[in-house]
Amino acid sequence: MGEFDALQIDSKRVLADLEDLSRIGRDDADGGIHRRAFSEADMQGRRWLIDRIEEAGLDARVDGAGNLGTRWPDRYPDVPCVMTGSHLDTVPGAGRLDGALGVLAGLEALRVLSANDVPVTRDIELVNFADEEGRFGGMMGSQAMSGQLTPEFLERAVDLDGVRLAEAMEACGYRAGDALSAEREPGSIFGFVELHIEQGPVLERGDHAIGLVDSITGLFRWDARLVGEANHAGTTPMDLRRDAFQGVADIAAQIERILEEHGGPRSRATIGRVELVPGAANVVPGEARFSLEVRDTDARTLHQLSDAFRRTLSAIARRRDLSFEFEVTSEIEPAACHERVMAAVARACTALSIDPLQMPSGAAHDTQMITRIAPSGMIFVPSRSGRSHSPAEWTSPADLERGANVLLHTLLELAR
Amino acid sequence: MGEFDALQIDSKRVLADLEDLSRIGRDDADGGIHRRAFSEADMQGRRWLIDRIEEAGLDARVDGAGNLGTRWPDRYPDVPCVMTGSHLDTVPGAGRLDGALGVLAGLEALRVLSANDVPVTRDIELVNFADEEGRFGGMMGSQAMSGQLTPEFLERAVDLDGVRLAEAMEACGYRAGDALSAEREPGSIFGFVELHIEQGPVLERGDHAIGLVDSITGLFRWDARLVGEANHAGTTPMDLRRDAFQGVADIAAQIERILEEHGGPRSRATIGRVELVPGAANVVPGEARFSLEVRDTDARTLHQLSDAFRRTLSAIARRRDLSFEFEVTSEIEPAACHERVMAAVARACTALSIDPLQMPSGAAHDTQMITRIAPSGMIFVPSRSGRSHSPAEWTSPADLERGANVLLHTLLELAR
Repeated sequence: MGEFDALQIDSKRVLADLEDLSRIGRDDADGGIHRRAFSEADMQGRRWLIDRIEEAGLDARVDGAGNLGTRWPDRYPDVPCVMTGSHLDTVPGAGRLDGALGVLAGLEALRVLSANDVPVTRDIELVNFADEEGRFGGMMGSQAMSGQLTPEFLERAVDLDGVRLAEAMEACGYRAGDALSAEREPGSIFGFVELHIEQGPVLERGDHAIGLVDSITGLFRWDARLVGEANHAGTTPMDLRRDAFQGVADIAAQIERILEEHGGPRSRATIGRVELVPGAANVVPGEARFSLEVRDTDARTLHQLSDAFRRTLSAIARRRDLSFEFEVTSEIEPAACHERVMAAVARACTALSIDPLQMPSGAAHDTQMITRIAPSGMIFVPSRSGRSHSPAEWTSPADLERGANVLLHTLLELAR
Repeated sequence: MGEFDALQIDSKRVLADLEDLSRIGRDDADGGIHRRAFSEADMQGRRWLIDRIEEAGLDARVDGAGNLGTRWPDRYPDVPCVMTGSHLDTVPGAGRLDGALGVLAGLEALRVLSANDVPVTRDIELVNFADEEGRFGGMMGSQAMSGQLTPEFLERAVDLDGVRLAEAMEACGYRAGDALSAEREPGSIFGFVELHIEQGPVLERGDHAIGLVDSITGLFRWDARLVGEANHAGTTPMDLRRDAFQGVADIAAQIERILEEHGGPRSRATIGRVELVPGAANVVPGEARFSLEVRDTDARTLHQLSDAFRRTLSAIARRRDLSFEFEVTSEIEPAACHERVMAAVARACTALSIDPLQMPSGAAHDTQMITRIAPSGMIFVPSRSGRSHSPAEWTSPADLERGANVLLHTLLELAR
């Protein structure tokens, strides 16, 4: 037991910060929050964070990609640092925790460490990553930091309204051309850890207070299309039909088998969107367009699942005399968390007498990008009913406090 | 063999009439025809028909519902008549045959019978039924004739643009209040027969020139809704989902079994419309709205199928922890064709050395209404690829000729 094992975050202060920040970009009608990246609300949130950093006696800094943060004790520029962070930008109609919790709990950890003059051998850096929610299509800030942006992307990226990334950044006082300079060298970060709400039901159902994340799922997403023949639903006998919707129903019925045969307990497959053409009650559907999204934490499993779904869909199409085509609209490699960071989280939990659940992250996070350049890991706290990206997002104050304390001690484990 | 067994329609004249009429309401860009009931194009079509009737030396007459026709030889007002007819109104983007064929072939039959002074013991009446395509929601003309309209309907019926039936009729010189007077007494029609294209693929696939219709399918149509829970597709394990789309896929997969167990070879079931909420690739569908349409020619079978679908959907909803509700949006009783008319069609076919296929009609027709007050039947000719309600609607001239000759001899069988 070390001298600082009993250090605690100030939970009232964290809750007050969450409440304070939640007012920025909030729609008072439904309580939903919208701080779109590089919008006025986002800039207000950033100014609010700068004030909190400065109140804590620290220096705020922004890199070329708009990643905003601070570094404490800022004494070891040549030693690989410890880093924590998440994001303050939100989707429309968001809750108060997604992203914000990781940034505010990191800030609180630095406040506690600095106020207690805790001795460390490495700097600890806090980062609010720019545009995690993908206004411009990706996780721009963490992609910039991990060297995954290209000049072409910075030049061409536009949001759904056609606004260019370069314009949006300029309006906020940033220069898109500087974003590449945000790249960090592999080896320059000793360990990265992100605290986040689970956004799923697993911790709550299992009555676990903390999730120790061991991997972040990858995914592939298809826009698929089955084409048969639109026919009169009354005059076309069942055996003369080429019903495109029946093809979609067939693949839906095969999902369980495919996951059992080719996937694992962490595999997920979802048909979330289906559009039928012409889409009338009295017409046999001539065409069905649908999405198929498949996730797993293992790259080889994902490839096997992709093969299996392709084979099964082709067989269904042949059997029903349909044509089948698909376009891969998204493909993200799974990312493994690092033993060093996982061990630090586990030790922090032990020190706090918490028995964490080792689990994957089913959602994407900035951590996924940072794994490319640094040993990384995540800490989850429960989400009520798994709700997120919604004003219904909620985690109990006790769980928030526990999560922030685990983060504090994980940073200490890594930095001392 | 009788003296008139060799009578033939003039196929060139029928084809010329079809061509002539098809110019009325035709969109020259895509060849689609639109003669909406009680529109200017419909009135033009009616005036064209009046001219043809008068050219044939017959008298045109219109009843209170706007049913337009003629009667030949108009010598037996007190003897139950023989009747034939169909409709000249169309859906948008229609072809040239649906409805028009039955009216023009009936007209041609009267021309041939009258020109040859064929002796009959009953009048033969030709009818162009008003609004078969349901601008005002039903088959207005044949419903009026069979006593199925109410003063409330005539008062309240509006089209999709909010135009009232009464206004639309008035603009054409008719009075909605007169429509009830179009009702005919049961017993006043000795036999009714309608010639129509099949609008399905059965005759073409089986290489049959003529369909001898024995029944017209009834149907029920449901707007159904399964509600589960919308969840993140990455963070929600498969066994914690309440995926509403999987419920729809389950019922789609049960259609074949339900038809085999509770239906017959003439049963059809179609899911033609599916809408998922929220309908995003990365969200487990929380709600699925879909149509289920089931048809059969037997009322008892339809009721059994309705029970079976309800039971199966309820069981699926229980198993997947979904809620299930549905609304019956349409319910039409099947109608049987009459032995007298079927026998007349069969004899006409024999006289013409045609081997007809006995079959149901999968689509609704004016005949379905007339069965309520008169022995009725239908004659089908093949539709290429089953296409209808489309400019691609096509039947070979030889098949059209055969169909019109079968109609001519059926009328003669019934009237002589």
